[in-house]
Amino acid sequence: MKKDILEALKQNKGKFISGEELSIKIGVTRTAIWKHIKQLKEDGYEIDAVSRRGYRLIQEPDTLELNELEIDIQTRLIGRNLIYYPSIDSTNNEAKKEAALGAPEGTVIIADEQTGGRGRLGRHWVSPRGTGIWMSIILKPQLEPAEAAKITQLTAAAVTTALRNVTGCEAGIKWPNDIIINKKKVCGILTEMSAELNTVNHIIVGIGINVNVDPKEFPDEVRAIATSIKESVGHEIYRKEIVLEILQIFEELYLDFLRTRSMAKSVEICKKYSVTLGNAVRIISKDKIIFGEALDLTEDGELVIRNEAGAVEKIISGEVSVRGISDYI
Amino acid sequence: MKKDILEALKQNKGKFISGEELSIKIGVTRTAIWKHIKQLKEDGYEIDAVSRRGYRLIQEPDTLELNELEIDIQTRLIGRNLIYYPSIDSTNNEAKKEAALGAPEGTVIIADEQTGGRGRLGRHWVSPRGTGIWMSIILKPQLEPAEAAKITQLTAAAVTTALRNVTGCEAGIKWPNDIIINKKKVCGILTEMSAELNTVNHIIVGIGINVNVDPKEFPDEVRAIATSIKESVGHEIYRKEIVLEILQIFEELYLDFLRTRSMAKSVEICKKYSVTLGNAVRIISKDKIIFGEALDLTEDGELVIRNEAGAVEKIISGEVSVRGISDYI
Repeated sequence: MKKDILEALKQNKGKFISGEELSIKIGVTRTAIWKHIKQLKEDGYEIDAVSRRGYRLIQEPDTLELNELEIDIQTRLIGRNLIYYPSIDSTNNEAKKEAALGAPEGTVIIADEQTGGRGRLGRHWVSPRGTGIWMSIILKPQLEPAEAAKITQLTAAAVTTALRNVTGCEAGIKWPNDIIINKKKVCGILTEMSAELNTVNHIIVGIGINVNVDPKEFPDEVRAIATSIKESVGHEIYRKEIVLEILQIFEELYLDFLRTRSMAKSVEICKKYSVTLGNAVRIISKDKIIFGEALDLTEDGELVIRNEAGAVEKIISGEVSVRGISDYI
Repeated sequence: MKKDILEALKQNKGKFISGEELSIKIGVTRTAIWKHIKQLKEDGYEIDAVSRRGYRLIQEPDTLELNELEIDIQTRLIGRNLIYYPSIDSTNNEAKKEAALGAPEGTVIIADEQTGGRGRLGRHWVSPRGTGIWMSIILKPQLEPAEAAKITQLTAAAVTTALRNVTGCEAGIKWPNDIIINKKKVCGILTEMSAELNTVNHIIVGIGINVNVDPKEFPDEVRAIATSIKESVGHEIYRKEIVLEILQIFEELYLDFLRTRSMAKSVEICKKYSVTLGNAVRIISKDKIIFGEALDLTEDGELVIRNEAGAVEKIISGEVSVRGISDYI
């Protein structure tokens, strides 16, 4: 019912709607309406209440709770099933559990805080409460395990486009799974999968974005290599707007990929916003280190480099550093 | 304490051990000893109890309960952590949960019955109570996802060798994951993994063996293509002996693989007992069907065939049928 009232207020944002009208529309007493309005104010909603005129929504809080997301989401697959936690160990871990229990494709787990956020290879990922976007998407595409890397590229394309659209920041992609602003990391993507030998059961795409984090909150060793949207654009951004835009663009790219089996659209975006191509790179792959120049992405999103010996080779995975970015000077 | 008594009886199998001796050895009253002996008899242990002489173990039941396995296991990694269920939906599913909770490498889940046993691609697998071996091994090797197929070959080598050693049956390997006797399937292997793009988190090896199943118990459509050890050798076999032999040989092959990073030992066994090599094969891979002749296995255990056009190609995965076996006539 709180959701219904909120939805009515949002439809009339900035305009008054009378208690009586709300009462009739939603089918509860005016006292019940009043109680829910009080709760919404406690949740951080700025609402005018003027006698004889009614209620007027001035401003929503920066919240990712379900009411906000569910009312405004426009997708038809990605995020239609949303699960929200104020705090959780890791949205990827939770998504794995949900997937094992049969959660449908497109299910999104989102949290206001991660107490055990992980980056690649189990590395710790700082995920403070209320200032970032920590979410995971469950996918069940018909793919071979070796193709899962495509989903990382698709996600990088979606997140970068969404960040640029909503915030105007100059986000770029450090192949394969980091989003960069001003040479510092603002977002990491962690793709995990459950698979049989030749068939993916499900893929979990974890997305962690530093949105309104104050750089002073980062630990010292992180501050040198990480940034936030707030630091880049100079003010706070509503996380909800970014989430909805990511889900929307992700859905477009993902449905296009399923339909065409081509990564063309995502790879075009990845090339356009790449901070890797044209630069010197250092790649740690298994037990060797490769130095070279990043030349291009293949149609599947793999990195093509010219190595020190002058030979052109294709890199499918590995730890990639780009000269001048983060810790590779 | 029941385990201690059983262990003492087993050490003296066929010989009498007095209640007093047991009482002193284990540190409980003779009445307690008597009660546990009574329970062991109810569990199916055949035990003589003769006044003034004591207790004598004649015969163990065909059980996979922990006491039996834990007392006799000789491995140091595979199966050192054993988890037994009288009945469970699927040992692979349970192994996935245990792995997610941090179960150590080598953990084995074993059940007397599966109510939702699965073969590849989610196919149903008949797993009746008390007549088969349904178990899963949790592994955490440093592997790329594409290498997981090696573990299937290693498992096929271990199971085939163990079945031959213990039962004298003429088990053969239908590449990549079926064990065959008399052209019918006696065992299936289901390898699943959790992985990041370039690193395996863990691998679950599911092994399902029809041991003492009476072929009459198979559904009609299964009877034509499935067999059991009992049908092959003409009598029942203690499942425990097979389990212990599998774990032992699996451990030898696995530790050798980790040490040498070479599949030589497993592939040698896979070639020796192959029912695929030298025969006409039909391979369903993605959306195409390949006909050809199976020529060889590579050093990594992949199948080499000569296709209808006369070209030699390497098959990494797919649904393989061998002319003359099961449903490919």
